[in-house]
Amino acid sequence: MSQGLWKPRVVRNIRRPDVAVVQALGEQGVATVHEAQGRTGLMLPYMRPIYPAARTAGVAITVSCQPGDNLMIHAAMETVSKGDILVVTTTSESTDGMFGDLLGASCQAHGVVGLVIDAGIRDTADLTAMNFPVWAKAISAQGTVKATAGSVNVPVVCAGAIVNPGDVIVADHDGVVVVPRDRAADVAKLGEKRIAKEEQSRARLKAGELGLDFYGLRAKLKELGVEYIDEEA
Amino acid sequence: MSQGLWKPRVVRNIRRPDVAVVQALGEQGVATVHEAQGRTGLMLPYMRPIYPAARTAGVAITVSCQPGDNLMIHAAMETVSKGDILVVTTTSESTDGMFGDLLGASCQAHGVVGLVIDAGIRDTADLTAMNFPVWAKAISAQGTVKATAGSVNVPVVCAGAIVNPGDVIVADHDGVVVVPRDRAADVAKLGEKRIAKEEQSRARLKAGELGLDFYGLRAKLKELGVEYIDEEA
Amino acid sequence: MSQGLWKPRVVRNIRRPDVAVVQALGEQGVATVHEAQGRTGLMLPYMRPIYPAARTAGVAITVSCQPGDNLMIHAAMETVSKGDILVVTTTSESTDGMFGDLLGASCQAHGVVGLVIDAGIRDTADLTAMNFPVWAKAISAQGTVKATAGSVNVPVVCAGAIVNPGDVIVADHDGVVVVPRDRAADVAKLGEKRIAKEEQSRARLKAGELGLDFYGLRAKLKELGVEYIDEEA
Amino acid sequence: MSQGLWKPRVVRNIRRPDVAVVQALGEQGVATVHEAQGRTGLMLPYMRPIYPAARTAGVAITVSCQPGDNLMIHAAMETVSKGDILVVTTTSESTDGMFGDLLGASCQAHGVVGLVIDAGIRDTADLTAMNFPVWAKAISAQGTVKATAGSVNVPVVCAGAIVNPGDVIVADHDGVVVVPRDRAADVAKLGEKRIAKEEQSRARLKAGELGLDFYGLRAKLKELGVEYIDEEA
Amino acid sequence: MSQGLWKPRVVRNIRRPDVAVVQALGEQGVATVHEAQGRTGLMLPYMRPIYPAARTAGVAITVSCQPGDNLMIHAAMETVSKGDILVVTTTSESTDGMFGDLLGASCQAHGVVGLVIDAGIRDTADLTAMNFPVWAKAISAQGTVKATAGSVNVPVVCAGAIVNPGDVIVADHDGVVVVPRDRAADVAKLGEKRIAKEEQSRARLKAGELGLDFYGLRAKLKELGVEYIDEEA
Amino acid sequence: MSQGLWKPRVVRNIRRPDVAVVQALGEQGVATVHEAQGRTGLMLPYMRPIYPAARTAGVAITVSCQPGDNLMIHAAMETVSKGDILVVTTTSESTDGMFGDLLGASCQAHGVVGLVIDAGIRDTADLTAMNFPVWAKAISAQGTVKATAGSVNVPVVCAGAIVNPGDVIVADHDGVVVVPRDRAADVAKLGEKRIAKEEQSRARLKAGELGLDFYGLRAKLKELGVEYIDEEA
Repeated sequence: MSQGLWKPRVVRNIRRPDVAVVQALGEQGVATVHEAQGRTGLMLPYMRPIYPAARTAGVAITVSCQPGDNLMIHAAMETVSKGDILVVTTTSESTDGMFGDLLGASCQAHGVVGLVIDAGIRDTADLTAMNFPVWAKAISAQGTVKATAGSVNVPVVCAGAIVNPGDVIVADHDGVVVVPRDRAADVAKLGEKRIAKEEQSRARLKAGELGLDFYGLRAKLKELGVEYIDEEA
Repeated sequence: MSQGLWKPRVVRNIRRPDVAVVQALGEQGVATVHEAQGRTGLMLPYMRPIYPAARTAGVAITVSCQPGDNLMIHAAMETVSKGDILVVTTTSESTDGMFGDLLGASCQAHGVVGLVIDAGIRDTADLTAMNFPVWAKAISAQGTVKATAGSVNVPVVCAGAIVNPGDVIVADHDGVVVVPRDRAADVAKLGEKRIAKEEQSRARLKAGELGLDFYGLRAKLKELGVEYIDEEA
Repeated sequence: MSQGLWKPRVVRNIRRPDVAVVQALGEQGVATVHEAQGRTGLMLPYMRPIYPAARTAGVAITVSCQPGDNLMIHAAMETVSKGDILVVTTTSESTDGMFGDLLGASCQAHGVVGLVIDAGIRDTADLTAMNFPVWAKAISAQGTVKATAGSVNVPVVCAGAIVNPGDVIVADHDGVVVVPRDRAADVAKLGEKRIAKEEQSRARLKAGELGLDFYGLRAKLKELGVEYIDEEA
Repeated sequence: MSQGLWKPRVVRNIRRPDVAVVQALGEQGVATVHEAQGRTGLMLPYMRPIYPAARTAGVAITVSCQPGDNLMIHAAMETVSKGDILVVTTTSESTDGMFGDLLGASCQAHGVVGLVIDAGIRDTADLTAMNFPVWAKAISAQGTVKATAGSVNVPVVCAGAIVNPGDVIVADHDGVVVVPRDRAADVAKLGEKRIAKEEQSRARLKAGELGLDFYGLRAKLKELGVEYIDEEA
Repeated sequence: MSQGLWKPRVVRNIRRPDVAVVQALGEQGVATVHEAQGRTGLMLPYMRPIYPAARTAGVAITVSCQPGDNLMIHAAMETVSKGDILVVTTTSESTDGMFGDLLGASCQAHGVVGLVIDAGIRDTADLTAMNFPVWAKAISAQGTVKATAGSVNVPVVCAGAIVNPGDVIVADHDGVVVVPRDRAADVAKLGEKRIAKEEQSRARLKAGELGLDFYGLRAKLKELGVEYIDEEA
Repeated sequence: MSQGLWKPRVVRNIRRPDVAVVQALGEQGVATVHEAQGRTGLMLPYMRPIYPAARTAGVAITVSCQPGDNLMIHAAMETVSKGDILVVTTTSESTDGMFGDLLGASCQAHGVVGLVIDAGIRDTADLTAMNFPVWAKAISAQGTVKATAGSVNVPVVCAGAIVNPGDVIVADHDGVVVVPRDRAADVAKLGEKRIAKEEQSRARLKAGELGLDFYGLRAKLKELGVEYIDEEA
């Protein structure tokens, strides 16, 4: 839900992070990025992709709408650049289908690389065929009006996570994570390290080494007083 | 949930809409049909297809069952014709798997083109392999008894929508919509117009025209007092 | 949720059912096995596979963890044998992603044929690519710590079903069913009979015979006072 | 959710059932009335009273609103008579607080005896102090606009039950039940009989007679093959 | 949900724990007992009392029913003794009102001191007036049939907790906890100690001592690397 | 859920708003304050008071915990002043009972006037008897450990609303609303005006004036094309 809406407003220009950083975070994926930034910024698990292979990363254009009203998504389209992702919230809970294949076509025409919406979505077969990735709370054919003011590029809360315009959004089959713009470069570097380390771990675990030994957990179990029993009673 | 069950009953013969109309509505899909009939008749978004490509349209045979009891689905099978869709409800909420591949085989033998069930479904892998489309509230292997009376071809409420026998059901990845029999032809015509109009819209939006201009929303935003700010604070 | 945790403990060796029995049950699938054992042992329908084709059967290694802590999954890995399935529960509700592709790699290195987890899962794209089948309550990138004691191979309640170590787990697109070890052979036999019978039923239903006749339900409907009406009012 | 909204409309005058019948049904309470009419017309159990002693019965004035918009509740107020109950639905799911103490005061000024709303409610402390009974899906301070058309006194679906204007609404701590206007007198008579019978049952059960004997269930249990075992294994 | 239902059966006589132990556990309350037995046996938090002051403790008579069918509750009434609590489960999820004031009257006539039901309940106003305490998943006027076999005094899973006949049930505003019969005396002793200790803690905390000092947590925070900052940035 | 947790930290001193402002907002109540600040800052409606008369206002001390771990609540107690309210969140969803009567006693000893917790609560009967108001997502006896670092007085997201330390929290039977510290005085003034205006409205509505006339909605209905029909069809 959106915050601080004293007056409805559209912020036309936002600061964006480095494109290479966004791309690096996208390659790392949600689980790695979430770990790399100290397990922060993850949206709640009810946000699901509309098709299994959906995967993207981009820069957040935030939109705060009245439930059942997509007027401000149209207003937001004037502020997007290539590589952006729309992050749409409503001022109270809604499952209405606020976005369909027409808006999807418009997004692709303007280089928008995905949609994260804490509400409903429709025309999912078309959006899948267009390869336009969407993460949503619900799928619903229920359409919306264009009647009430809202805001574009203000701070919002989307599925439990704070999103500021210009933040990096990374989304894949595991969910959606938000990386604050100013930390994006640092997180990307930490993510690289994590991936390198995981590569090694994977090799050793594949070779049959136990996590108990690998992570040195035997001492921990002993310290916690976990008892070993040889045979089932 | 079913209404008006003073006495359990099976209505053998129902009036059906024109086949061509049903087909036309099916081609238009749920989102278009829902819009065309003034945004009415949509089932709640918890109704999901058991496989992504599921898509159908047909004539409603309604069934009202005791939860955990599929006796009346069997009774309903005697009333179906080619092109019908079973619409199954229970008198209180249930997720039991009331329908499986055997009933699916029976349906296909009699020309039934789909199932919409406000309860559970099982044998989903088989039903998918058979290409028998199902929209359900839950997937559950929990079987049912055949012990309690219910009704066939009475008015029911299915996932929040009123369904009368003989209504048209359109279902796809966006959900399920009900079109009253007597309005089906009119809705189909309105749907055609809507599709033609959307085709034009799509072309213009793909070419990069903004929805703001296309739908003439700039005046609306001004009237609503939405303020434009050039740069992020 | 786990029961009887007076003292945290790891039971190293469990009794396992016959491999051929496990395989037979796996071929029968969840719906058949659930019926064959008198409709018992089914997990709640919120347990869903991470990819549609997921299907497995194996021997339960049970794990009881603190929510947000996967230490005991690592402890459990020392007790697994080829053909086992991890059944992971938490002492209170959690959706955290307690298991990812590294643990998946470890499982495959040790012959574990699946995971059933009453919590969250992450790295779902990798696990799908690895063909490692998982049934879970949620998909979440939220990682866990390795800090609190729990138990391995104690009786647990997973998604509403009691699981004892050594029980057979059968899982497919319809859900997850637990077969007590000592009944596994008997259930497998009953399942065979059921399948044979269903084969015959399927043939007759495909040929157009009605369930009403096939199951002899006309008398039942009469006895229940279901009225037949020829025409819609 | 509302049905049949081709054109938004307000029906000014509705037919109402006999006042004595409404009163009789109200005295019987939800559970008895629901039984008396063959277990039909019950709203889903998520509809809860805002205070435990809430109890009412009246005639349905139905209202279909856009979610987040209470314009049509105001329109409905012009159509009410003493003894009516407002039944408010939205065209898609919403928890917004569409009704507060001001509308409550207006209702009491016009003799409205309760509100049943498949959405949210606010000013619950004031409404409780005023003794104005409300059954709702949610309590939320989120206010609404007055911007979009809807209908008054059309058939609606409220919490899974069909409500036509003029139907009798009975509501208490057990939930909400709808009695079709034309059946109200018959249901009231059946309810009386049921209460008389229950009075006798209560006396016998209080005296220690078992339901097994009272309802003659021993034969049933035998027929179903329920085995009696003397001692716990 | 119930387990192990090969054959429906009623076990007439169960072993019960010492009355004084049950009483002691009841006085300690749910939170204390749950802690005393190592945080096991707690039912899921969706189990709520029908009135705020509800509080009881007793011996479990377990009942496994078909959803929508309360036949076996009647069968169970023949097996109860003074001080027992009915623990009712269904073989799949249901919110039907399986128990009302008549069964409540019967329970009180036979000394039953409460009901714990993983389904629905009705006549809640009467049950409250009778001071008969109930913990349930839902309140619903929807009645049930008496048509299908089930079992009495078999092990069941109720709201995520295993309950064996003869176990102690403690229930209050915090929820419901199950104490295995053979551990009840030990748990009661541990509970006494815990209460004595809490009494001391309460006195010191009331006097203004901080938990940080009281529980010695300052070292822990330092070890975990928690940084102290004097002023808000 | 908490944001920006690069390093766990405790901020000892926060800036607080004027006491008179907090008191004024508390007297206005949640619905009025929410309206007065442009319908922002409302927590999601799943946050409910543990007793109906709970009502408070105070200054937010924010706490971000690991789920199942209340260590940081103890750390927070060192930073509180008279008139503060604890706002507790977890880094992923949890219903564990993180706070009970001992912490309640500690809070009262230090002048804390309430708790808002996006997780579980226990000892609810004691907390009610102590008149310590709590708004929570769940009631659960499940206890927690004190093992993992978190933060105190950092920005958090609680039940969908951003809370900064020092913000004003207003909570009553309608829910919980957050007022940013720097706006608190302005919001309080707007709230006063709103209350004065509502007083007048209430008088006129009580006198029977219709909202249609009072708010001038007849023109709106006409403009929207709402049709008036005299008699039910």
